[in-house]
Amino acid sequence: MEIKVMANILEVNDSIAKKVKERLTCHGIFALNLMGSPGCGKTTLLEHTISALKSELKIAVIEGDLYTDKDANRIEKHGVPVIQINTVGGCHLDANMINIALDQLDLAAIDLLIIENVGNLVCPAEFNVGEHGRATVLSITEGEDKPLKYPLIFREADAIILNKLDLLPFTDFNYNAAVEDIRKINFTAKLVAASCRTGEGLDHWYDWLRAQVKKQARC
Amino acid sequence: MEIKVMANILEVNDSIAKKVKERLTCHGIFALNLMGSPGCGKTTLLEHTISALKSELKIAVIEGDLYTDKDANRIEKHGVPVIQINTVGGCHLDANMINIALDQLDLAAIDLLIIENVGNLVCPAEFNVGEHGRATVLSITEGEDKPLKYPLIFREADAIILNKLDLLPFTDFNYNAAVEDIRKINFTAKLVAASCRTGEGLDHWYDWLRAQVKKQARC
Repeated sequence: MEIKVMANILEVNDSIAKKVKERLTCHGIFALNLMGSPGCGKTTLLEHTISALKSELKIAVIEGDLYTDKDANRIEKHGVPVIQINTVGGCHLDANMINIALDQLDLAAIDLLIIENVGNLVCPAEFNVGEHGRATVLSITEGEDKPLKYPLIFREADAIILNKLDLLPFTDFNYNAAVEDIRKINFTAKLVAASCRTGEGLDHWYDWLRAQVKKQARC
Repeated sequence: MEIKVMANILEVNDSIAKKVKERLTCHGIFALNLMGSPGCGKTTLLEHTISALKSELKIAVIEGDLYTDKDANRIEKHGVPVIQINTVGGCHLDANMINIALDQLDLAAIDLLIIENVGNLVCPAEFNVGEHGRATVLSITEGEDKPLKYPLIFREADAIILNKLDLLPFTDFNYNAAVEDIRKINFTAKLVAASCRTGEGLDHWYDWLRAQVKKQARC
């Protein structure tokens, strides 16, 4: 019974996601669904990204969180439009939430919309929210076994960021094994090894994002 | 619609959980539901716990994972009975899964059953699996904002383990703020600061577990 209900929910979600994507595309916006475990560094990556790119791109952010506006408050300080979605315990964002949030944004004034999903390596991957691309963040401290343990979120990513590289010397993380496992399930994703603490590797991430926005503007 | 379906699922789950709990209780077993984010250190904590306590307690383990048996293989090496449950993409364990798994264990030969849930800070907290106690692991590297961002799993915990204490000097983690936030939502949980890497603090965790098993045996 549960599976049938799930199928219905996903079907309804997909049809709304299609409309959300069209709405964004016709404004020339590139929308990124940013996912990863709690504490993997999504918000910090987002803060760095805004600082680095806001002079050249018009950025807006949608923040998903169960109850708080902690992350949205962090983003707001960087002077870009941010909408907070509270899922009230819900484990992921869905397309309908994004559709409603878009009403509060001036879509004509956005090049890049980053949607930070709820911290969760499972459920967000199942729900298309109308994005054009997906990025999954894995922090070194989570261990190299995660890509094969949570394959969907890594398989469907267009970019994968291995974050907290500065902590590598203090962990048993096997970097080569992690990359090998990621490549077993995803041949094509842009892979970025980075540290939001030291800034290492972030330029490759910015370049990838710039390229996506540029491609999108031409659609 | 989704909420109504969810209520039905939770109701069915609760009635099975009640039976599972009775089944375990009548064998004098203390069952612990071990929860936390992907990579917070649940399996490593479990490995240390088995090594430390297996000479004095009869331990068995149920491992929850989306697809793999990676964690069960790690536990098996420690010479205790372990049952792997694969949720096939599902984001949490439920009482029915545990009920079925129990058929494969010799319940008369168990004092302590540890159920390692799927790595997820949201969904597992909503599903009682028939346990007598809950332990939530938060690793230092996840950041001190997590207890208020994911309150349910911290509120309902009987023990909270702040793990990866060895990495504290290399992060911005505000230890006092984390403890303060945890105490805002949970006054009574046993709080253990520990490092599975150095062994620091684990004795307090073992003492707490021993006390739970002892209390249970008297029921």
